[in-house]
Amino acid sequence: MLDLTELVNIDVTVAFVWYAVLLIVKMMLMSALTGMFRRKKKAFANPEDTALVAKGESAKKFLRTDPDVERVRRIHLNDLENIVPFLFIGFFYSFSGVSLSTALLHYRIFFGSRVFHTIAYLIPLPQPCRALSWFAGYLVTFSMVYKLVMVGLST
Amino acid sequence: MLDLTELVNIDVTVAFVWYAVLLIVKMMLMSALTGMFRRKKKAFANPEDTALVAKGESAKKFLRTDPDVERVRRIHLNDLENIVPFLFIGFFYSFSGVSLSTALLHYRIFFGSRVFHTIAYLIPLPQPCRALSWFAGYLVTFSMVYKLVMVGLST
Amino acid sequence: MLDLTELVNIDVTVAFVWYAVLLIVKMMLMSALTGMFRRKKKAFANPEDTALVAKGESAKKFLRTDPDVERVRRIHLNDLENIVPFLFIGFFYSFSGVSLSTALLHYRIFFGSRVFHTIAYLIPLPQPCRALSWFAGYLVTFSMVYKLVMVGLST
Repeated sequence: MLDLTELVNIDVTVAFVWYAVLLIVKMMLMSALTGMFRRKKKAFANPEDTALVAKGESAKKFLRTDPDVERVRRIHLNDLENIVPFLFIGFFYSFSGVSLSTALLHYRIFFGSRVFHTIAYLIPLPQPCRALSWFAGYLVTFSMVYKLVMVGLST
Repeated sequence: MLDLTELVNIDVTVAFVWYAVLLIVKMMLMSALTGMFRRKKKAFANPEDTALVAKGESAKKFLRTDPDVERVRRIHLNDLENIVPFLFIGFFYSFSGVSLSTALLHYRIFFGSRVFHTIAYLIPLPQPCRALSWFAGYLVTFSMVYKLVMVGLST
Repeated sequence: MLDLTELVNIDVTVAFVWYAVLLIVKMMLMSALTGMFRRKKKAFANPEDTALVAKGESAKKFLRTDPDVERVRRIHLNDLENIVPFLFIGFFYSFSGVSLSTALLHYRIFFGSRVFHTIAYLIPLPQPCRALSWFAGYLVTFSMVYKLVMVGLST
């Protein structure tokens, strides 16, 4: 039977956990940002929430969608769609026998790509800024998938 | 090299798995609830789904959004945005050398906050019931992040 | 203290990782598919994206929702709602002392159900094709939850 401790390069896994925590915190901040935008733009999704800014009949007009709120919500959903796959693939990848420097390169580019993606989406920067930053993170994840498949096929 | 078995306090990890399973089941039940609300309110997202309640041209009017269905879908998305980060952070946290009682306190408050959040969202209870229950879970996750960062910096 | 290496049936965990990677790649492909549909149907969510197909005032009309784009986005969200729970439950399940053949049966049915779900959603096939494929995956996840609860209660 395979010795589990042989599989584990603890330095790589610890590095993964640092970047995973950074990415999760970044993703969770989108919740707070959505709340801030909803209050600032007075655009709520639920009737009970409009009580924050108005009472009675006049509150109904704040039950609406706002382009800036929807923009923040799209960033959040895009984070879920991209960061969650990274968290699983990056975790498996940290056990693939990869060197610390190669793993860090992957984790750092991915983290940078997601931070830049959010900035490009929020400002917004003209395309293809956002598209390219999204694609960089997408490629990093597929590069880790490639390594996992190569290791898997050779054992 | 760090001994992997030293890192693992199996009691904390097992406690984490129990709460993780509970939270995932709770989150998955939102799928079933969305389906029930769609049938009850006759509000479907796809033309092929309207065949469940009507045939031919008359079915088209059931291709619509309904406030109660959208409410359940928002709960589900909010679960994804909050429970998925908890699952990763809570997993890492279970290896942070935390005591079982402190870990259980975190896991229980988080689980309670998400159950109360769903109840407050479904009924709906007046604000700030839902906001506070969401914030309790948010704080618990950040408390675990804080512990991870403290442990990480001291090693 | 429990011996960690006793918990681990590495064959089952490796099998899990294979199916997890397959499912994550399948889920990530939905991002690319959404992008392709947005360009083909000229239906964008952001003003800055419409510059891909038109300049100036005429670009505004491409800031719209399109039924086919929304369909692909619903598949992606449905993947997040179902595959992410599977990834956590399936990971825990791989440490539950389950036999490789039983584990593979679960992983394979789940993977098949998600692939068929996407095909049934894209074409679309008449209901209940999509509903049944979704339900098969849902049941597989709950079957793994049942095993985890049984193992948990007996220790």
